[in-house]
Amino acid sequence: MTGYVNGNVEKPNKYFDRKDKRDFLYHFGFGVDTIDIPAIFGDTKYVCTGGSPGRFKLYAEWFAKETNIKCSENLSRSDRFVIYKTGPVCWINHGMGTPSLSIMLVESFKLMHHAGVKNPTFIRLGTSGGVGVPPGTVVVSTGAVNSELSETYVQVIAGKRIERPTQLDSTLREALCAVGKEKNIPVETGKTLCADDFYEGQMRLDGYFCDYEEESKFDFLRKLNTLGVRNIEMESTCFASFTCRAGFASAIVCVTLLNRMDGDQVQIPKEQYIEYEERPFRLVTAYIRQQTGI
Amino acid sequence: MTGYVNGNVEKPNKYFDRKDKRDFLYHFGFGVDTIDIPAIFGDTKYVCTGGSPGRFKLYAEWFAKETNIKCSENLSRSDRFVIYKTGPVCWINHGMGTPSLSIMLVESFKLMHHAGVKNPTFIRLGTSGGVGVPPGTVVVSTGAVNSELSETYVQVIAGKRIERPTQLDSTLREALCAVGKEKNIPVETGKTLCADDFYEGQMRLDGYFCDYEEESKFDFLRKLNTLGVRNIEMESTCFASFTCRAGFASAIVCVTLLNRMDGDQVQIPKEQYIEYEERPFRLVTAYIRQQTGI
Repeated sequence: MTGYVNGNVEKPNKYFDRKDKRDFLYHFGFGVDTIDIPAIFGDTKYVCTGGSPGRFKLYAEWFAKETNIKCSENLSRSDRFVIYKTGPVCWINHGMGTPSLSIMLVESFKLMHHAGVKNPTFIRLGTSGGVGVPPGTVVVSTGAVNSELSETYVQVIAGKRIERPTQLDSTLREALCAVGKEKNIPVETGKTLCADDFYEGQMRLDGYFCDYEEESKFDFLRKLNTLGVRNIEMESTCFASFTCRAGFASAIVCVTLLNRMDGDQVQIPKEQYIEYEERPFRLVTAYIRQQTGI
Repeated sequence: MTGYVNGNVEKPNKYFDRKDKRDFLYHFGFGVDTIDIPAIFGDTKYVCTGGSPGRFKLYAEWFAKETNIKCSENLSRSDRFVIYKTGPVCWINHGMGTPSLSIMLVESFKLMHHAGVKNPTFIRLGTSGGVGVPPGTVVVSTGAVNSELSETYVQVIAGKRIERPTQLDSTLREALCAVGKEKNIPVETGKTLCADDFYEGQMRLDGYFCDYEEESKFDFLRKLNTLGVRNIEMESTCFASFTCRAGFASAIVCVTLLNRMDGDQVQIPKEQYIEYEERPFRLVTAYIRQQTGI
């Protein structure tokens, strides 16, 4: 992996040696004992992830069709996440918010460990709200900002706050941007705000609760824009922090579905919505095909 | 609603009057414009919620069978949540963690508002890790404790931390406990820790990362037990805080799948697992049937 300032990669859990012979990935519904993980997942090079289970099924099917590689059935044995595999690419959804994502990442990292995969690349393909960029823009994140506006991921362990860096791989980012230009996909780089909720945390006016004024919302969005934030979603800090800790190259590629400066509700025709949803997929898969030659 | 010290109920968003004629519940995939919300949801009295989509489909089907009421199809038009309805009871899953739950609650509150439902009762039926109680215990929460061990829900709005109380309805709790005793379900009351993740935040030793020692884990669990915490899950603070703010009676009823003092992985035979999963359902539906006479 390249582009990181911090090279302190954390090795997998020291208690693993004792326990991993029976390790069960609870939210994937399978374990070392129940399936042949190296046989099924051993050739993985990329783990692509994002919130929606339906979209990740679609992405996997599209990729299979494009590359003429067989798409697996849903390999998850739990209803918490879906897992599809197309050759060297795993497609796993992560639900909404950092807690759900953190479970998916930990179990994916354990899955790669059990499969003997050495340096998987993790890419999050998502949707987001734009901050001063037109709808349809694909933002490749330069960093992830938490709700308190610092570039860290806050974990609480044993009752104590720990702040960890949220760096992303600059080499991977630049390569993705180059592919975007080549493919005529409207790409921007910028920071991504990771909100803890969809409504009040993003200062929407269309939630059930709203004890702030419309003007405060615009003040907040302008402040974000000044800080270099170009979009808002709900997973980036945990995604950047966990992949960085594990020493895996990673990138966040999210299309904006609206410009929050103009409104709070997504109001685009269905056809346009689908075309926007396709953009992160088109960009990331073009990159993966370029790298792997498939 | 009874049992609350704090009677400051927040009214629905003041911007609603201007906007709700076109309000779209994005993560439910429908809106005021697209379906007849009062006709479909207007008779709701209880909203039962929990993490897993599959379990909530099952719960709805079991309830329909027991009461001889028709179970709706999945009324959600998005893949983010499932929504089933059986007469006066809605069954909606909320995914994992407070961010995902917060979206489901805000959209459910808006749904009830649009449907004209005045005082819906919200009950979370979940699974959890026990702290010093045997597996299979159904914990009816007396309060929700956040990861920093205070009984508040921390929201960050406009970059600033806001702490809100996490009170639950004592009358509803007592009624649920009485039904539990009547039905011979092993019920305990106690506080519930709301962790932000499944692994490090709960001090498991079987995650990918683990930079603490086994002894620290037990120190933490013993500390929780001393504070009156009887189980750990990932949604209670937000659930208690949001329902309290809205003035809706609410309760959290979670079965424990393991005693965390004894281990980190769920290791019970499938049959036992299913019987444990049924316990919150049996308790809550007995209560609902007693109250509604259905």
